[in-house]
Amino acid sequence: MIDYLEKGTITSAKGIKAAGIYCGLKKQKKDLALIYSDTPANVGGTFTLNKVQAAPLLISKKIISKNQKIRAILINSGNANACTGEKGFNNAIDVQEYCAKYLGIDKEEVLISSTGVIGVQLNIDKIKEGITEIQLSDSNSAGYDAAEAIMTTDTYPKSFACKVQLSKGEVTIGGICKGSGMIMPNMATMLAFIATDADVPKYLVQQSISEAVKKSFNRISVDGDTSTNDMVVLMANGASEVSITEENSDYQLFKVALRDLCKKMAMAIVKDGEGATKFISVKVGSAKSEIDADSAAKAVVNSPLVKTAIYGADANWGRILSAVGNSGINFSPEKVMIKVGELSLLTPGYISNFDESAAREILLKKEVDITIELNEGQASTNWWTCDFSEQYIKINANYRT
Amino acid sequence: MIDYLEKGTITSAKGIKAAGIYCGLKKQKKDLALIYSDTPANVGGTFTLNKVQAAPLLISKKIISKNQKIRAILINSGNANACTGEKGFNNAIDVQEYCAKYLGIDKEEVLISSTGVIGVQLNIDKIKEGITEIQLSDSNSAGYDAAEAIMTTDTYPKSFACKVQLSKGEVTIGGICKGSGMIMPNMATMLAFIATDADVPKYLVQQSISEAVKKSFNRISVDGDTSTNDMVVLMANGASEVSITEENSDYQLFKVALRDLCKKMAMAIVKDGEGATKFISVKVGSAKSEIDADSAAKAVVNSPLVKTAIYGADANWGRILSAVGNSGINFSPEKVMIKVGELSLLTPGYISNFDESAAREILLKKEVDITIELNEGQASTNWWTCDFSEQYIKINANYRT
Repeated sequence: MIDYLEKGTITSAKGIKAAGIYCGLKKQKKDLALIYSDTPANVGGTFTLNKVQAAPLLISKKIISKNQKIRAILINSGNANACTGEKGFNNAIDVQEYCAKYLGIDKEEVLISSTGVIGVQLNIDKIKEGITEIQLSDSNSAGYDAAEAIMTTDTYPKSFACKVQLSKGEVTIGGICKGSGMIMPNMATMLAFIATDADVPKYLVQQSISEAVKKSFNRISVDGDTSTNDMVVLMANGASEVSITEENSDYQLFKVALRDLCKKMAMAIVKDGEGATKFISVKVGSAKSEIDADSAAKAVVNSPLVKTAIYGADANWGRILSAVGNSGINFSPEKVMIKVGELSLLTPGYISNFDESAAREILLKKEVDITIELNEGQASTNWWTCDFSEQYIKINANYRT
Repeated sequence: MIDYLEKGTITSAKGIKAAGIYCGLKKQKKDLALIYSDTPANVGGTFTLNKVQAAPLLISKKIISKNQKIRAILINSGNANACTGEKGFNNAIDVQEYCAKYLGIDKEEVLISSTGVIGVQLNIDKIKEGITEIQLSDSNSAGYDAAEAIMTTDTYPKSFACKVQLSKGEVTIGGICKGSGMIMPNMATMLAFIATDADVPKYLVQQSISEAVKKSFNRISVDGDTSTNDMVVLMANGASEVSITEENSDYQLFKVALRDLCKKMAMAIVKDGEGATKFISVKVGSAKSEIDADSAAKAVVNSPLVKTAIYGADANWGRILSAVGNSGINFSPEKVMIKVGELSLLTPGYISNFDESAAREILLKKEVDITIELNEGQASTNWWTCDFSEQYIKINANYRT
């Protein structure tokens, strides 16, 4: 039903163009991306909950909160324009205005986003010069260029697109994102920009992206920190001429596809986490409530002890159980069951009697599934993380030297 | 006023004896400690908030909750007796009874505590045999032996003692503790046992230790995890014949000394954190409330990004500010001031203009002071942590191999 496109990217959605170029903020790497819709698009988004919020984030958030359409998103890497005060705010507005003028559209139709070093003023001359060099295209490679230009410590660009058949025709959803690996040069940021050619009313754009983020990007963790610049934006330009007018079955199909695409993007971010050698999926089942399930899973994916154990291929169910014990939820530890892959490490009554070498074999794989059954109720969830290796420390301790 | 004793330890308090021996739970390292009071002692304690709690912890907690005196604390390392079900519970009772019988006292006068691997049944025969070999002594070296026998991944034993002059005479407080470095073999535990020869009523023993723990052990972090076996116990046997009868000025003096001793012990734990190369003190000042100050400091000491930055001697104030932004407190980021040592990295209005090499010089030292002024109110706090090095990952990933 959800049909992923080979080499799919944000430009896979009709009427969406993109570009990614080098403007001089980073050292010889692409650092300026533009996403452009031929026609005005409804927009929705979610933003970091960090109390410290970057200037471009505040500006884009305000635009999204209004009932108006947008045309473009300008993103730079290499500088987060965070903690830069009034000057940083004015710089952000300046860049936004310049971009709007260059594209011949209204300032309020341009979202802006930044990622990279914080506390340093943006070199707006370089960005402006860069804008004039941008050549928009609806090709796949233009989408990939944009995905590359928003990278910080990511080791590869992340692009996805899928088609979904609705009752009145087919729509496409495409997106690019960059990693949450925190840092280089100073702090990372999780960014995702998604476009669909479905015609979706503003309130459903916002509702669908909020729900999708809750079950995808909000269920991943690399190191438990969230940044000053995190944002996820969905734009819907209607270029497919297929409309979703209300919360009907078409909307449900669209929502499922959007959520699935966001999940793919979120998983890609985790797989490329700083120093990651393994992808870890943590399922919590039979919890009393969804909140309990999420709290337990979150505690496990954020535990350095669990993440280092998996890195060391150690079937350390004690650390997993203890992490759940620290989550603040109410449960009976003696009822818990823990599996890695299909192998039971712990069954209710604290019974643990497994083949260490079989466990090690499972844990030596690149993808590890941890299942925790609380045996308390009906709710379940699934979170994703990566392991914790020496490389994470190296990346985060040494990048300035 | 608070006079620390050279080579001070738990046996520095009058009427307190101790021993630490090898009974066979660990590989050729001391693994069984006994602390003994010649006369019955009032006792108070604080325990882990982890929902998963070890059998010995549950047993000791129950005794402390009753209005009765104790005589001894038996502690083993090498096995946490956690997640061991009914058998583990019965084993703990068995050991407790055996120890009481051997000492000729009541079972309820013996606290028990365990640390080490979880999910494995205790070898009670080895412990019982060990008990019969114990030779109690009030010497310093006996206290040090006990401190050594409770170690897991600690690299050195931790003992402190101080004297404090009260209106009716001098009392001594001595303690031993072991680290929160989590793990080896499966999970670590923060344990502290403190004895005083002051004569203190039960309710003030409990009150003073609760308050002291809040401002010492609860303000440290190595990796943000808390274990199934954490406990801090204070016993007061009155052997000095100096009484504290109520909440008078003598009690205040005693409380200050106890808190200071706990702070010393907590700092020692952090300094010996797994893979730690630096000791980090985080002061948060001018917060709206104590809760805000503690939340902000806790977020900073728990941030892997801050801890790796300090390890790399990087004056990354952005990570510090972002950690505060993630703490959930309400504050204005633009009012914040951040210092390392005496050097300002950030002043209000996001002004940052410091000498990188001077900052690096400060951060290359073994002890780093971070000061964060929120400029919101009058409350302040001080937390402690260590940096985050590759060695932490190595210890936690590879110990089973």
